[in-house]
Amino acid sequence: MQSAYRPIRVALLGAGSVGSQVARLLLENKDELARRVGAELELSGIAVRNVGAKRDADLPSELFTEDAESLIIGSDIVIELIGGIEPAKTWIMLALQSGADVVTANKALIAAHGSELLGLAEQLGAQLYYEAAVGGAIPIIRPLRESLAGDRINRVMGIVNGTTNYILDQMESTGADFADALKEAQDLGYAEADPTADVEAYDAASKAAILASLAFHSEVPVEQVYREGITSVSAMQIETARDAGYSVKLLAICERVNEGESGLVVRVHPTLIPLEHPLAAVRGAYNAVFVEAESAGQLMFYGAGAGGPETASAVLGDLVSAAKRHIAGGPGLSDSTHANLSVLPIQNVRTRFQITLEVQDKPGVLASVANEFGSHGVSVETVTQSAAGAGVAAQLTIMTHSALERDLESLVESLTKNDFVVQVDSVIRVEGI
Amino acid sequence: MQSAYRPIRVALLGAGSVGSQVARLLLENKDELARRVGAELELSGIAVRNVGAKRDADLPSELFTEDAESLIIGSDIVIELIGGIEPAKTWIMLALQSGADVVTANKALIAAHGSELLGLAEQLGAQLYYEAAVGGAIPIIRPLRESLAGDRINRVMGIVNGTTNYILDQMESTGADFADALKEAQDLGYAEADPTADVEAYDAASKAAILASLAFHSEVPVEQVYREGITSVSAMQIETARDAGYSVKLLAICERVNEGESGLVVRVHPTLIPLEHPLAAVRGAYNAVFVEAESAGQLMFYGAGAGGPETASAVLGDLVSAAKRHIAGGPGLSDSTHANLSVLPIQNVRTRFQITLEVQDKPGVLASVANEFGSHGVSVETVTQSAAGAGVAAQLTIMTHSALERDLESLVESLTKNDFVVQVDSVIRVEGI
Repeated sequence: MQSAYRPIRVALLGAGSVGSQVARLLLENKDELARRVGAELELSGIAVRNVGAKRDADLPSELFTEDAESLIIGSDIVIELIGGIEPAKTWIMLALQSGADVVTANKALIAAHGSELLGLAEQLGAQLYYEAAVGGAIPIIRPLRESLAGDRINRVMGIVNGTTNYILDQMESTGADFADALKEAQDLGYAEADPTADVEAYDAASKAAILASLAFHSEVPVEQVYREGITSVSAMQIETARDAGYSVKLLAICERVNEGESGLVVRVHPTLIPLEHPLAAVRGAYNAVFVEAESAGQLMFYGAGAGGPETASAVLGDLVSAAKRHIAGGPGLSDSTHANLSVLPIQNVRTRFQITLEVQDKPGVLASVANEFGSHGVSVETVTQSAAGAGVAAQLTIMTHSALERDLESLVESLTKNDFVVQVDSVIRVEGI
Repeated sequence: MQSAYRPIRVALLGAGSVGSQVARLLLENKDELARRVGAELELSGIAVRNVGAKRDADLPSELFTEDAESLIIGSDIVIELIGGIEPAKTWIMLALQSGADVVTANKALIAAHGSELLGLAEQLGAQLYYEAAVGGAIPIIRPLRESLAGDRINRVMGIVNGTTNYILDQMESTGADFADALKEAQDLGYAEADPTADVEAYDAASKAAILASLAFHSEVPVEQVYREGITSVSAMQIETARDAGYSVKLLAICERVNEGESGLVVRVHPTLIPLEHPLAAVRGAYNAVFVEAESAGQLMFYGAGAGGPETASAVLGDLVSAAKRHIAGGPGLSDSTHANLSVLPIQNVRTRFQITLEVQDKPGVLASVANEFGSHGVSVETVTQSAAGAGVAAQLTIMTHSALERDLESLVESLTKNDFVVQVDSVIRVEGI
């Protein structure tokens, strides 16, 4: 097609599941994209480690190169889809320094070095887009950066890892234990052979850091995100939760706190949420991000959180924005850390807890346990007692009112020393009520 | 605060429930907004019909003026929140012609004259933002315009009117009939004294036209939106739907069709959706927009669809974008109708139907009815028969496979003439399966 503007040279780094979809869409939808942008998007090359490797997608072999640096230097826009920290970081810096805008889906890199890279981009007048880094196809970065730019966000809660949501959902719907549900997820390709990044919540913690820094206009280092995975979630916990009207989800929670010191707490851990909460309805490998803002109230963004085509959709959305800005100039997106809130340890958070205790079945147990709660300033909402068979011990399931994490920690320590308490079976945080 | 850029003069037209919130937030959050924008946003005045009228919000009286035109001409950005077609349209044109960017929440105006106004803005190099026109605080315009700009949207289904969702939800949860649920909604302030715009789906049709034109890059005149309200939805229909595993929602549906002619169909009508569909979980006055895109798959955007503070949040998000662009220049948002798809009548749509018939309780009824379906090319999935008391008549509830609307219409006409059929009680479309 004819266009007033010269073709925009787009370099692609990486040809994995997302990269090959991006390349395919760029080639197949060339005319439609040109109409939307107002100039042709010319895929100038695809940098890969080994040009001889077998590829899933049928892409023209002459596009492939092992010389990423030369490809980057001749480009207007560089799309980084190789993942990991290096060489991704070096190449993104090279791209920005050579005057290109950058689109990336690299959550680990943005979580670890986002503020350095965004700062470099700003200093050079270039742009760094990363919608695909959180929530796959779900538009969440742009709504936080732009649509809610005039509002004050108080809290973000997200199901941001599809693998763990799939596993927990399977445990809930079939009664399977963690190991079996993980194995099934691996067989179906939802979990990797080494599932650590997902099940230990490293992936979710990276995304939590990105969401928190955007929502609160502050720098949030990923090391300051409290992180607890799902490996110790038991079938029994899920059943107990379900009976009480809750679903167990791995949530990334970013919020303002004001207990003495004010600041942010960012945390990822298994969480009970009421079955009627919109996040409880997020099944399988889907993702969703729930936002509470002062004026806008409650919002939720839902969709596929991963997958080649889905993530490619987010990358192309960013590419179109970058290309339009390339033609017309202007502000593009900018991240600001002007609010500069500090990240506080999880001990500053107030939340509710469900605690399950195995106790001796003797008179005076309930009074003694209740006394422990009271003396640690943790107020009890409900207690459910069930016999644990053979008359030896009973199980108490206690739902607390909102309590400070640090009070809860010292309560649990005391409970483990209480003579009536055989053991503390489970302590799980409760949100969304 | 200090800023390199001179203050940006913001004029507000209207001081109703949204306008007064916007004014309040502009004044209260002045410093925070200045940090986000990079320049001060100075509320230069509020145009109202009568400066002496009593206001809910406590706003400085010197801001009010009855001279909208002078206020507009001296402004950088004009926020139109008076609603309706005139004088809103004239004032928006004046603002654009005098070099200002415009932010509006006026869905009726955008649906009726959006392409004319957007065309004028483009011609003058100005911008027209309208995130608040659909879905209140829910960011939906921006995701459709930008995040999905590199994808191909196939379908949009939305609950875009909070009043009717509240009424249908009440009918479903309490068994109330339409009149009682409407009265309750009016008492609670969810419905207006004259509820026509909501319950006859004029409001939803405006929003459907806006969503369709954005999603499909085509001009969609609101008169070409098929529109059916909820006034004839009965308690019995809702109960029958529920028993079969469905919820009744007023959906705005925009989709590509390819039955012979290809184009778009845009329609608003009561619809059955399966209880497990994410849209079925949208309760009360909440809104949600469900999008199906080729690469991104299924996405949903959920939140408060109306309300002063909620809509003000969307207006301020647009204002921040407009102000940043005012400083840096650049492409802003643009709507394109390059795809130029034509809007086809609803007869071109394929969907499933649930049909309830009152029939004589005689041998041969089922064969005769089944024969009518077959001869009109409508394939039946399930038939449920229930006696309708006193042995006189029976009720048949029939779920069809996907059928062409035009075939269904002629089927219903034939059924009403069939000797065995006492009457056709209900015909309702089914989506989301």
